[in-house]
Amino acid sequence: MERLSVNQWTVRSLGVRDFADGCVRHGIGAAGLWREPVAEFGLARAATLTRDAGLRVSSLCRGGFFGRPGWLDDNRAAIDEAAALGAACLVLVVGGLPDNSKKLRAARQHMAEAIAELVPYASDRAVRLALEPMHPVYCADRGVLSTLRQALDVAAAHPPETVGVMIDAFHLWWDPEVEAQIGRAGREHRIAGFQVSDFLMPLPADVLLGRAMMGDGVIDFGPMCRAVTAAGYAGDVEVEIFNADVWAADPDDVLGRLKERYMTVIANELSTNKLSEMFR
Amino acid sequence: MERLSVNQWTVRSLGVRDFADGCVRHGIGAAGLWREPVAEFGLARAATLTRDAGLRVSSLCRGGFFGRPGWLDDNRAAIDEAAALGAACLVLVVGGLPDNSKKLRAARQHMAEAIAELVPYASDRAVRLALEPMHPVYCADRGVLSTLRQALDVAAAHPPETVGVMIDAFHLWWDPEVEAQIGRAGREHRIAGFQVSDFLMPLPADVLLGRAMMGDGVIDFGPMCRAVTAAGYAGDVEVEIFNADVWAADPDDVLGRLKERYMTVIANELSTNKLSEMFR
Repeated sequence: MERLSVNQWTVRSLGVRDFADGCVRHGIGAAGLWREPVAEFGLARAATLTRDAGLRVSSLCRGGFFGRPGWLDDNRAAIDEAAALGAACLVLVVGGLPDNSKKLRAARQHMAEAIAELVPYASDRAVRLALEPMHPVYCADRGVLSTLRQALDVAAAHPPETVGVMIDAFHLWWDPEVEAQIGRAGREHRIAGFQVSDFLMPLPADVLLGRAMMGDGVIDFGPMCRAVTAAGYAGDVEVEIFNADVWAADPDDVLGRLKERYMTVIANELSTNKLSEMFR
Repeated sequence: MERLSVNQWTVRSLGVRDFADGCVRHGIGAAGLWREPVAEFGLARAATLTRDAGLRVSSLCRGGFFGRPGWLDDNRAAIDEAAALGAACLVLVVGGLPDNSKKLRAARQHMAEAIAELVPYASDRAVRLALEPMHPVYCADRGVLSTLRQALDVAAAHPPETVGVMIDAFHLWWDPEVEAQIGRAGREHRIAGFQVSDFLMPLPADVLLGRAMMGDGVIDFGPMCRAVTAAGYAGDVEVEIFNADVWAADPDDVLGRLKERYMTVIANELSTNKLSEMFR
C-alpha cells in the first residue's frame, strides 16, 4: 500500500481539497494532480494542502500538445506549477497530428525540438519531464509518441534527471518489446513513473474512455510489474482510469475499490519475491 | 495501374464471378481472394476462372487464428486452397488472446509454434505464408502479431520463400520504425505483399471498420511507399477496405473510385523517380 498513488482524473468530480481528504482517509500516500483543478483551487493553496496532508505529488498532468498555438508558454507555466507542487514529474502528452496535416514525421521532429526547447527551463526549476508513449490508437489525435523505445530514443539527448519516461500499462501492454525497453529505461535511469489501469475489450465508442479498473480488462500485469521492479523502480504506482462508469460512481467507493484491486492485482506482482521467481 | 490489385472484401457483395468480371472490366490485373466466397463458387472453378481471365491472385485471405479449435486442419485446408489458386501468398491473421485468457506472452509463443508446424506443409505445396502484423488496437481480439519487427523476428526461423510478411499501411503507419523495418524486410527477402487503405479518424465504434479509401484518412502514404520501393518490392499493391459506406456503395463505382485514388495517392509515390528524390 505504501507505493499506491491515485491520479485525480480517476475521481474527477472531486476538487483538490476533497481529493486530498479522500486519499488521506483511505491511507493513500501519493496523488497525481491535474492542472485545471489545481488552478481552480489555487496553486499555492494546493501546494500547502498536499504538503500539510503528507501527500507526495507523484505527477502533474499535463504538459505537451506541442502542435497547439501557445504551446511554449503553456508548457513553461506547467513546469512552474510542477515546481510549486514539488511534483515528481510533469507528464507530457505530446499531441497528435497538427490540424489538417498528415505529416507524422514532421510532427515527431517538432516534438523532439519542443522537448529540447523545454529542457533548460525545466532543469533550472528541478522539474523532471515525463515523456508518455501512448497506445497507437491515439497516434493521430493525441500522441505521436507511440512506443517506449521511441520515448527513450528522444530522451537520450537530455540528462535523465530532467527527461524521463512515464510507463503506463494501458498504453504499452501490447508491445512485444515492452519488458526489454523497461529494462533499458532502468539502465538509463529514465523511469519517472509507473501508471496502471486496465485495457477494456471491446473498446467503448470513445476510445479515450477504454481504461478500466485493474482486473477488468485484458492486461496481464505480472510480466510488466516484474520488469518494472527488475529495472530498479521503487517509486509510486499511480492508478489512472478514464471510464464513464468509474466517473459516475461514488468517489469514495472508487477509492476503496482501487485500493483493493491494487492489492490483489498489482502489489504482489511488484514484490521482489516475485522477481526471484522470475530468475529461478 | 499494372500493379493495382483489389481485395475481394473491398467489394464484398460480389461473388467470385462478378468480382473477376469487375476487375477485368476496370483493367485491374490482380485480385486478392477470400476463402468463403471461393468455397461458395467452387475452388477449382475459381482457379480456372481467374486463370482464364488473366488475373493474378495477389493473396488468399486468410489463415491463422491459431487459438481456435481445429486451427491446424483449417490452416492446412487454407494452404491447399492457396496452392490450387496459385495465390502469391496466404495471409495469416494470427488471432488474439484465447477466450478468457490474458496470457499474451503464451499466445505469442503458441503463434510461433503454430507457424513452425505449418511451414513444412506449406513448403511442400510451394505456398508462401504472409505474416500480417496488425494495429495494436486489435491485439486482444484479432492479432497478437503487432509490429513488423516482431513479424520479421518470427519469420527469421524459416526460409523466406515459405514465410514472408504482409505490409499493410493501415496497420503499420503509426510505427516509428516502419520504414527501417521495411528496409530490413527487403534485405531479408520477406516482403510477400503490400496492402493499402487509409486510417479513419475518428475511428467508428466498430474499430474493424476503420479503414477508408486512400486519401480519406490520416496516413501520409509517401514515406511508406518509397520505403517499399527502396526495399526492392515490385509486386502487386492490394487495396483492402473494410468500411460500411464502401460496402453500401455500388461495387462498380467503388472499383472506379479506388482506381482513381490508387493513381492519385499511391502510384506516383511508388515510382523510382520518387525514390531518387529521397536520396537527393
